[in-house]
Amino acid sequence: MKTLQDYIDKLNKLNFKEMYNNDFFLTWEKTDDELEAVFTIADALRFMRENNISTKVFESGLGISLFRDNSTRTRFSFASACNLLGLEVQDLDEGKSQVAHGETVRETANMISFMADVIGIRDDMYIGKGNAYMHEVSEAVQQGNKDGILEQRPTLVNLQCDIDHPTQAMADMLHIIHEFGGVENLKGKKIAMTWAYSPSYGKPLSVPQGIVGLMTRMGMDVVLAHPEGYEIMSDVEEVAKKNAEKSGGSFTKTNSMAEAFKDADIVYPKSWAPFAAMEKRTELYGNGDMEGVKKLEQELLAQNAEHKDWACTEEMMKLTKDGKALYMHCLPADITGVSCDEGEVDATVFDRYRNPLYKEASYKPYIIAAMIFLSKFENPQATLKALEERAAKRKMD
Amino acid sequence: MKTLQDYIDKLNKLNFKEMYNNDFFLTWEKTDDELEAVFTIADALRFMRENNISTKVFESGLGISLFRDNSTRTRFSFASACNLLGLEVQDLDEGKSQVAHGETVRETANMISFMADVIGIRDDMYIGKGNAYMHEVSEAVQQGNKDGILEQRPTLVNLQCDIDHPTQAMADMLHIIHEFGGVENLKGKKIAMTWAYSPSYGKPLSVPQGIVGLMTRMGMDVVLAHPEGYEIMSDVEEVAKKNAEKSGGSFTKTNSMAEAFKDADIVYPKSWAPFAAMEKRTELYGNGDMEGVKKLEQELLAQNAEHKDWACTEEMMKLTKDGKALYMHCLPADITGVSCDEGEVDATVFDRYRNPLYKEASYKPYIIAAMIFLSKFENPQATLKALEERAAKRKMD
Amino acid sequence: MKTLQDYIDKLNKLNFKEMYNNDFFLTWEKTDDELEAVFTIADALRFMRENNISTKVFESGLGISLFRDNSTRTRFSFASACNLLGLEVQDLDEGKSQVAHGETVRETANMISFMADVIGIRDDMYIGKGNAYMHEVSEAVQQGNKDGILEQRPTLVNLQCDIDHPTQAMADMLHIIHEFGGVENLKGKKIAMTWAYSPSYGKPLSVPQGIVGLMTRMGMDVVLAHPEGYEIMSDVEEVAKKNAEKSGGSFTKTNSMAEAFKDADIVYPKSWAPFAAMEKRTELYGNGDMEGVKKLEQELLAQNAEHKDWACTEEMMKLTKDGKALYMHCLPADITGVSCDEGEVDATVFDRYRNPLYKEASYKPYIIAAMIFLSKFENPQATLKALEERAAKRKMD
Repeated sequence: MKTLQDYIDKLNKLNFKEMYNNDFFLTWEKTDDELEAVFTIADALRFMRENNISTKVFESGLGISLFRDNSTRTRFSFASACNLLGLEVQDLDEGKSQVAHGETVRETANMISFMADVIGIRDDMYIGKGNAYMHEVSEAVQQGNKDGILEQRPTLVNLQCDIDHPTQAMADMLHIIHEFGGVENLKGKKIAMTWAYSPSYGKPLSVPQGIVGLMTRMGMDVVLAHPEGYEIMSDVEEVAKKNAEKSGGSFTKTNSMAEAFKDADIVYPKSWAPFAAMEKRTELYGNGDMEGVKKLEQELLAQNAEHKDWACTEEMMKLTKDGKALYMHCLPADITGVSCDEGEVDATVFDRYRNPLYKEASYKPYIIAAMIFLSKFENPQATLKALEERAAKRKMD
Repeated sequence: MKTLQDYIDKLNKLNFKEMYNNDFFLTWEKTDDELEAVFTIADALRFMRENNISTKVFESGLGISLFRDNSTRTRFSFASACNLLGLEVQDLDEGKSQVAHGETVRETANMISFMADVIGIRDDMYIGKGNAYMHEVSEAVQQGNKDGILEQRPTLVNLQCDIDHPTQAMADMLHIIHEFGGVENLKGKKIAMTWAYSPSYGKPLSVPQGIVGLMTRMGMDVVLAHPEGYEIMSDVEEVAKKNAEKSGGSFTKTNSMAEAFKDADIVYPKSWAPFAAMEKRTELYGNGDMEGVKKLEQELLAQNAEHKDWACTEEMMKLTKDGKALYMHCLPADITGVSCDEGEVDATVFDRYRNPLYKEASYKPYIIAAMIFLSKFENPQATLKALEERAAKRKMD
Repeated sequence: MKTLQDYIDKLNKLNFKEMYNNDFFLTWEKTDDELEAVFTIADALRFMRENNISTKVFESGLGISLFRDNSTRTRFSFASACNLLGLEVQDLDEGKSQVAHGETVRETANMISFMADVIGIRDDMYIGKGNAYMHEVSEAVQQGNKDGILEQRPTLVNLQCDIDHPTQAMADMLHIIHEFGGVENLKGKKIAMTWAYSPSYGKPLSVPQGIVGLMTRMGMDVVLAHPEGYEIMSDVEEVAKKNAEKSGGSFTKTNSMAEAFKDADIVYPKSWAPFAAMEKRTELYGNGDMEGVKKLEQELLAQNAEHKDWACTEEMMKLTKDGKALYMHCLPADITGVSCDEGEVDATVFDRYRNPLYKEASYKPYIIAAMIFLSKFENPQATLKALEERAAKRKMD
């Protein structure tokens, strides 16, 4: 694409009017057109930034971030997205705030949102909680807006929940689209989302779930591979199945990493915890059974250790299409001999794909910005055009 | 009010020239005209934001926040106010900084203020300390400005001290003004600032003190009610008495919650710690007597527990004017059966007043912004006019 | 200087083209012209701010700060500099991030830099580590930029490393230049960089090293004084010697504070730890020998205590040129009877020089901003001119 008008033309063909004044929770709650709109706006914003055209659409306004776990990358991606649009980030740090002390979600959500245009939440630790919490927050501020408390309706962006990791999966998808030269080239491509061994435990399920929930929509052959006992959420498997049927692709499962890698165009080997175990952990934490949590952790580590052969080695890579599948990861990866003794991926494989991996990650700020943009502007094409005409420079010459 | 000119016309009738290049410590240090100017600017800023007119009066500059306690609401209110005017917030977190390590206040105040236009401080824990500390900081930066160290004089905004909580009381007042349709309708209205039971202890006195110190200026009948032994600072009671005399209202005290609620137009039931106990606690902390602090805490909790009948129940509410007094709280409230077993207010009462309570809170960012605005601009009317003529949009169309 | 054109004229005579798209690690890696350019831009930015001309050259973009120690002053200086230019600060707090958990520097550096225009790092604790780490980060993001990952090349600004503290030394120098009425008046002036007693231990060497590494370039007579055993890095002494030869000044060492103070025009008495001891400490930490660290600390404190006579007393000050040498310190100082029983400087001396000390510190934000400015703009003269012509006000009238 060469001009901003190309992106605008593309948007003109899509129906995404429901995204206006709306949230982004799960990719499978969005239509194909809506996802396409996110990709297109993300590309348009990147195009403009690369051409030193300011995309500051807000003169003032806050972007609230709420992270229940530590997070460098997502934190910076969200901050970058907000900054790109002109919003200032304010962290709602539970250490600093009173949220943890029994205050109702509804109240806090409103109290922090008087000038908030977007709220980004990462809450992926406890099964059945994160996504539900985000909905609670969203409903609270929608009500606040309706009741005249809030002058604007803050957009909720899911920065990772217990079910999906949409900003990750969408950034991954945009990376694939660019690597393969367009959505139209993805039909029939094989992608292997496979479990891989890691010496740590309890890695979130939202990444594999997000990947199979999204990639199955592009007519690709999506294979989910893991050792027995590492099942993901069955609801998401159902989503993947239906997606595949509709898109003309396929969704299959296997307990063999080699089978998944065989002739794959794309591989995404990554550790995660069994869904059932995470459900159990959530229950144990809920009951304050720290002894039980500890015991579960030991069991899971022992279980993981039985599957050290689930690694993305050079040998494994040779099984892929021409030995040259696109290796993907949400980062950071457990690299054998680098960040751990035995891990998810061989150092030489990782090294060879470093650039694509970094590039993959680089889409996330734009994806987040696009989600905000689509929620905030009723006619994003007109807004893009106005930005081009304003022609303010991001950085002076 | 319909146009910005209406706000400007109102300001033209007021004398607030002493607010320029000044601080905001206590409401009773300000004239009626000055308080009226704060309300008017707050309303004008809100009017402009609601009409998507940018009120960014600073291209760059910092707003420094210094909180000695955790605080979600005040932190976000301050951040929102700064953002609305174009200032970027920098937190002076004692965990991150060297303030706690014996460094003189004067030096730190200057070192953080090279580009600071405002400093917001919350320091309400220790009797005799918070307000004094704020004055120390203010004097340090005024001197720094006079000596040519600082290019501007940072405005000090009291975000809650041991004596007053002016941004809260002013937001509360603005809420009342709007609920009752104007200052002119407040004469003769009865407001009950009453103690209420909470299972926690040591809640700051600055809220009841701020309320009786401010509300007595509007010709209202202000009743301060609490169990024996829960006296507030006597200096502030004196302020309230004098205010009432001057304004043609009244200031009375009672040890009966029912008496206070009787025919009240407004009720503000809220827990606080006895002033004498807080004085003692300050002394104990000063002497490092942690044993004494612990003992005092136990005594206070036991004392509180004797007054569980001090609760804003449905029955109590029935005593108020037509059973429909405006219920107010600075939030978060201790809600019986919700955030605690027995607390300040019945859940049904709280539920019924949720919207007004949130609305009440929503004024705080504007009150803070107005305080900054009045300190920074010698002719705020002209600045408002210039903003209207510039007609920059807060958010692009 | 009276007009912006004067600064531009000065810049026109200097060669600093290598600073474009470059980093700032050590002052002695820069030419005299380059340092002069930093001073000139710093003065120009201050001139513009004092005349209410906005110097916002970025519409959006992040300034990343990474501090391995607590730091109020440098943190606020960096934040002020970024804000002055239009960049929003994002702290990479190791507590919040995953850096500490074995993640490679290269990856993190890229992951946080998608929209970063500058990265400021303070890492001064461990000998041989801080500067090396900064180079690693810089190389990572340069590579990322070359590989098309990052759309811009983030500038690395050394906010204090194990070798140099260039933003401090440059701010100090600019202070001296203004105090003495120009660089041309510094030839032959005597400056004493001397050790002074402090009851704490392990203060960084980067300040004395930075001072002797920079001040020797101005034709000054630089004396480094300390008790035996408090040697600084020998490499830096070599730099100082060569600088002095080239500039026509001198660099001498002494173990007598009085000798250093004798007829000095400027004195800079400050505690630091012996280089050899810091090397040893770094090794002990590396080996996880906390017992050894503790023992070393005790030894160093005992060693310090033998030199309590190394203090900047009124008597010592009398030895200086007309008893009126300019007293300097990077702050905070250990003030006898104020911040400690016995320390680096008498309270009366400190009091007399408070204003110059604060003024000294006030240059740091501008020095940092100038370093960023010179790295980001190929023709800074044109950019300054454009800012003047744009004539946006920092603060509305």
